[in-house]
Amino acid sequence: MSANPKIDPVAIPATMKAWVLGDPGELSLVDKPVPRPGAAEVLIRIDAVAICATDLEVIAGGTPALIEGDLPFNKNFTPGHEFMGTIVELGPNVDEYAVGDRVAVEIHAGCGRCERCREGMYTSCLNYGNNYPGHDKGHRANGYTTDGAFAQYAVNHVNTLVHVPEGMSDETATLIVTAGTAMYGLDVLGGLIAGQSIIVTGGGPIGLLAVAVAKALGASPVILSDLVETRLELGRKLGADHVINAAEESVHDIVMGLTDGVGLNYAFECSGAPNAINDVIKLVKRGGRVCLGAFAHDPVPIDVRHIVSNNIYLYGIRGEGKSAVRRAAALMAQSRFDASLIHTHTFPLSELPEGLRYAREKLDGAIKIVIKTQEI
Amino acid sequence: MSANPKIDPVAIPATMKAWVLGDPGELSLVDKPVPRPGAAEVLIRIDAVAICATDLEVIAGGTPALIEGDLPFNKNFTPGHEFMGTIVELGPNVDEYAVGDRVAVEIHAGCGRCERCREGMYTSCLNYGNNYPGHDKGHRANGYTTDGAFAQYAVNHVNTLVHVPEGMSDETATLIVTAGTAMYGLDVLGGLIAGQSIIVTGGGPIGLLAVAVAKALGASPVILSDLVETRLELGRKLGADHVINAAEESVHDIVMGLTDGVGLNYAFECSGAPNAINDVIKLVKRGGRVCLGAFAHDPVPIDVRHIVSNNIYLYGIRGEGKSAVRRAAALMAQSRFDASLIHTHTFPLSELPEGLRYAREKLDGAIKIVIKTQEI
Amino acid sequence: MSANPKIDPVAIPATMKAWVLGDPGELSLVDKPVPRPGAAEVLIRIDAVAICATDLEVIAGGTPALIEGDLPFNKNFTPGHEFMGTIVELGPNVDEYAVGDRVAVEIHAGCGRCERCREGMYTSCLNYGNNYPGHDKGHRANGYTTDGAFAQYAVNHVNTLVHVPEGMSDETATLIVTAGTAMYGLDVLGGLIAGQSIIVTGGGPIGLLAVAVAKALGASPVILSDLVETRLELGRKLGADHVINAAEESVHDIVMGLTDGVGLNYAFECSGAPNAINDVIKLVKRGGRVCLGAFAHDPVPIDVRHIVSNNIYLYGIRGEGKSAVRRAAALMAQSRFDASLIHTHTFPLSELPEGLRYAREKLDGAIKIVIKTQEI
Amino acid sequence: MSANPKIDPVAIPATMKAWVLGDPGELSLVDKPVPRPGAAEVLIRIDAVAICATDLEVIAGGTPALIEGDLPFNKNFTPGHEFMGTIVELGPNVDEYAVGDRVAVEIHAGCGRCERCREGMYTSCLNYGNNYPGHDKGHRANGYTTDGAFAQYAVNHVNTLVHVPEGMSDETATLIVTAGTAMYGLDVLGGLIAGQSIIVTGGGPIGLLAVAVAKALGASPVILSDLVETRLELGRKLGADHVINAAEESVHDIVMGLTDGVGLNYAFECSGAPNAINDVIKLVKRGGRVCLGAFAHDPVPIDVRHIVSNNIYLYGIRGEGKSAVRRAAALMAQSRFDASLIHTHTFPLSELPEGLRYAREKLDGAIKIVIKTQEI
Repeated sequence: MSANPKIDPVAIPATMKAWVLGDPGELSLVDKPVPRPGAAEVLIRIDAVAICATDLEVIAGGTPALIEGDLPFNKNFTPGHEFMGTIVELGPNVDEYAVGDRVAVEIHAGCGRCERCREGMYTSCLNYGNNYPGHDKGHRANGYTTDGAFAQYAVNHVNTLVHVPEGMSDETATLIVTAGTAMYGLDVLGGLIAGQSIIVTGGGPIGLLAVAVAKALGASPVILSDLVETRLELGRKLGADHVINAAEESVHDIVMGLTDGVGLNYAFECSGAPNAINDVIKLVKRGGRVCLGAFAHDPVPIDVRHIVSNNIYLYGIRGEGKSAVRRAAALMAQSRFDASLIHTHTFPLSELPEGLRYAREKLDGAIKIVIKTQEI
Repeated sequence: MSANPKIDPVAIPATMKAWVLGDPGELSLVDKPVPRPGAAEVLIRIDAVAICATDLEVIAGGTPALIEGDLPFNKNFTPGHEFMGTIVELGPNVDEYAVGDRVAVEIHAGCGRCERCREGMYTSCLNYGNNYPGHDKGHRANGYTTDGAFAQYAVNHVNTLVHVPEGMSDETATLIVTAGTAMYGLDVLGGLIAGQSIIVTGGGPIGLLAVAVAKALGASPVILSDLVETRLELGRKLGADHVINAAEESVHDIVMGLTDGVGLNYAFECSGAPNAINDVIKLVKRGGRVCLGAFAHDPVPIDVRHIVSNNIYLYGIRGEGKSAVRRAAALMAQSRFDASLIHTHTFPLSELPEGLRYAREKLDGAIKIVIKTQEI
Repeated sequence: MSANPKIDPVAIPATMKAWVLGDPGELSLVDKPVPRPGAAEVLIRIDAVAICATDLEVIAGGTPALIEGDLPFNKNFTPGHEFMGTIVELGPNVDEYAVGDRVAVEIHAGCGRCERCREGMYTSCLNYGNNYPGHDKGHRANGYTTDGAFAQYAVNHVNTLVHVPEGMSDETATLIVTAGTAMYGLDVLGGLIAGQSIIVTGGGPIGLLAVAVAKALGASPVILSDLVETRLELGRKLGADHVINAAEESVHDIVMGLTDGVGLNYAFECSGAPNAINDVIKLVKRGGRVCLGAFAHDPVPIDVRHIVSNNIYLYGIRGEGKSAVRRAAALMAQSRFDASLIHTHTFPLSELPEGLRYAREKLDGAIKIVIKTQEI
Repeated sequence: MSANPKIDPVAIPATMKAWVLGDPGELSLVDKPVPRPGAAEVLIRIDAVAICATDLEVIAGGTPALIEGDLPFNKNFTPGHEFMGTIVELGPNVDEYAVGDRVAVEIHAGCGRCERCREGMYTSCLNYGNNYPGHDKGHRANGYTTDGAFAQYAVNHVNTLVHVPEGMSDETATLIVTAGTAMYGLDVLGGLIAGQSIIVTGGGPIGLLAVAVAKALGASPVILSDLVETRLELGRKLGADHVINAAEESVHDIVMGLTDGVGLNYAFECSGAPNAINDVIKLVKRGGRVCLGAFAHDPVPIDVRHIVSNNIYLYGIRGEGKSAVRRAAALMAQSRFDASLIHTHTFPLSELPEGLRYAREKLDGAIKIVIKTQEI
């Protein structure tokens, strides 16, 4: 871990620049009070935040789990959740971290008191979104239900923090949480995947880092499919043994050719393409497992008969969990893969809308766009 | 366990009566040689065999997993797989059982040499159906890919056998394997389900026994939904705390009412209704688990977004596995539930077609129909 | 669940009677302020508390885990941890329970922020005992490190609460946590133990309830060994299929006789006898599992060669965990066994020392002694 | 995988050179018939076999598990079990491998029909050693209970085979099974150990490869303790982040210093030192896990109180299992570590006794001694 001794607590300003979401799609850059950390919390000076596809959703249409729960559009808060920064203040009784520590975050802080949190599944907290005055169960999903990181400061629960490995740039450190989501999907699929075959479908940030983490954990072969050649090329650099351009080749035929017609151990669906699930259930062998890390927006017809006849398990995951972000950071500290390859663009805080446009329209080969929040 | 000392090995006849499947839907009652047990096998005099919905499928349309694998219609063999009987001959080196033992069976004997069998998942054997001369990997799914029990004798691998509890009737003993499938689904969902809430959707034989096994294992509450009042009544007798007639009431509303709007821990889908999966994924709470033990024949649109957003896991199971049949038999030996309640009709071997008709058309409240194969 | 509408919050007194531990062995009955609940906490009017063997230890020699950690003798607090009572006040934002609810408790409230708590293993909280001013990480083990239940009121975290089943007596409800420890041991051993063989060695309260819970979950056979005939008799009433008086018979010989010389699936060691571990590792079959729920005070020579050669796993458990208390309460709500059988004596609060003497000297067949704390 | 097209099946000789064990310690080099493969078996021309510490035991004192089972000294067979070679003949229905394939082996072929084998735990086969005429359940532990590899040919079940990675030397390939045992221990401890801390105690072959595999899987930090500087040096080369010479430093103090006094996640005990277990249980944190991969020959006093108070789990393992050898081979195929570092000496078949002496007396820094069995 690396510490920055230059932080001066008295230098914490009273207000900060922050983007605030109004009605759907309406973001404003405002001055807001800098929040203060409570028990088990720290105040972080945000140094960098990456744009995630879900940010686009949250801004345009609302927080997915709140919509699911028929809750009103969540507004008047700051989105942004894939961030890193420097601890500038500790809440009471916090000694797990020190002022000056560089930290990355995971998104979910569970309530700590529901059935799921008691069993360690804080990502599935049953009090998701229950964090409003008078009904505050302690759940936090910064950037979704509580203030996030398109701003200069944020308060985080210690459970969500992980030390940034020594020598890692701010930009790359924003990708730790993305790698954590990839790690979590691989944990759910089996954990000990050395020597097991896997396909990752969809070479966006999570998919590409899933390739990297799977390779680091010894999976073999690691296959990536996507429609875009540059993403496949990145997949190869991050460890894919085989890449398949699904626009040009039959993924099914190639996978069957590679596996003597038997199929793979695992599939990690990261594309969200409409027919993706039907495709991937036919890429795994009998008794195979599929992690669903993305989804098409409309219901799609699924061949359940195939799932049942072949004893296939499907695991929906909503982001990271089970401290996977720490495991991912450990691999990155060991330089097992170069996450910086997927960082393509950088903007200052004031240009967030432009960054979002690059992300939405995938301009200029954009994969991961980082906002430097201390630069206005 | 109970033994029948009256068996006289020399009394094993050379031939037996057996139904043989020709082209789809064509069954003939013929005389066939009585088979002989090989290594790790026994010869069983079949005393009773129950009709399963899958028998209807196999007879009419072929063995599901073979169809999946694009193999030709499996013909010239004897269907029937939910049976019990008396051991009349032991193969070489068999001492786990004795002549005279009454045994029930599970269906799958894995090859013992593929990746799945090596990890104990013999139900997902990768050599399923690979048991033809010159390519015999040892897999057996009697009644599906190899000769089954609409006949008077059958050979079984010792792995598929379980002792019939003392004092249990032949008819009830045919239901041990069905209870084993129910047990397996509950194992896959969590195993230790005491105090956990569950809904079983569909009150056919597997669903009803799933209610019984779930209750025996301490699940609470156990809810059953179906469209037929008599099946719900049976569910209540087998341990359901709540039954819901889905033709008259909203399953979703009742479940939410029972759970303060949170949903259940588990759902075990046994109905195969077209929209069943979409319904059950909305009956479980965030982080809930769903076992798919049945399926609609055509692909159905599924709300994958809900699965992913809510961290839901889905487990397809093809019948029993992991020695669940033995666990089910143990519960039945302890009289934890009365499986005989779901046995409704009995026919002699020659009247199999009539029994199949009762099963297919659900005549006269038919749930489980048993064929007494020693009665012609 | 049952609620008691008679509670009048304004009737909460300012002070209460409570036993306080001074130097080792020195207990005084004093007047203390009634504590007030904080966030995620409730105030409980203690109605009954059972004496556990560990209470004797804590009073005479200190809190085990604090001693382990080389911390000073924990004094000036109230011991007692197996209790139940009625909620009389809710902390801020608590709505999981209501005033008037009758609740039993589990002992450990983890800090919620260490590695173990984040993974749901709150019983193994790495901040055990770290709950002193200026260093309060939130861990609570009432009766061990924080004020317990040999008093009239106690504050508890909502995570530690479980509803007392309707119609259950106060005395029996104190045993829910003991049954929870038994349930936890069986969870650790395998969870789905239906049809699996098990021996419980030692017929104290945990051992006897382990027999009861194992039987309720379908284990078969369930064997109990002890040296005292009356305890074996209770074991039989609670569900033991076989009981062995280890003073008169060879446990090993009988177990081997019952298992064709192969041994059992599981052993749950609850005796703490010096040679117990060596004995139980030879009662389980190859690949068998042993739960250590008690311990001799001095190190004992153990045949590690046997453990390694036979692929045996040993699981140390310190009390309940993983919400096992709720599962146990669910079984008790279903009347799966009669825990009241092990309750033998009752004393008012002022006679705690006499109750402790009965427990220590096992007077008059004492098994579980209950203190009615509202009776002075 | 690599195939050797030069194999000529007709060239399989009728007899071969093989060492045969007579009374304890008495090995003779004789001519024996070359065995023939049965169903699911292949005949392997042994190219290289490594000497394991257990070989010394088996030769001097008998097969451990047979002794455990009070069976007579196993004689008149060929010891040696860590081998590799080239397939020269296939049994009936074998198509998983081809003549000419270079393969390494795992040791245990389970019976496939006991409770343990049915659940995939073939290493703990309940029919261990039951492979004699008239009572052959199919279990094979070549070199322990059946003919092993201090010879020129051996028959193996297909389940025990793994392809030797392309380009790997015969000598290194003999270490695949050793790496498999290391992999298995890490699987048992947790599988997904990325970012988790671990100590390996004892730098023999299994310990050293445990360091290598743990590092490859991302564990951090990986610590090795031993008494011999050269072994520590090898540990460092294989990936240890810290090495501790237990003859000179306090392992406990160093581990606590590295972990802020909290202790490690895992310990893998590979030394067999008398007090090793007591030491390692105090190196892991509360809730930590310990794998026992070695053992002192005499029972040692163990502080069970510490195990129970700290929720520690201990896992005895007898060699590899759960196809761990294949996972290890996959890592070696990816060149994740250089197992050849631990190969120190090579002898021809006729000089086996000299090789055994080097292994027994650890002459000349001997770690892994390989016998080239085709060289007389």
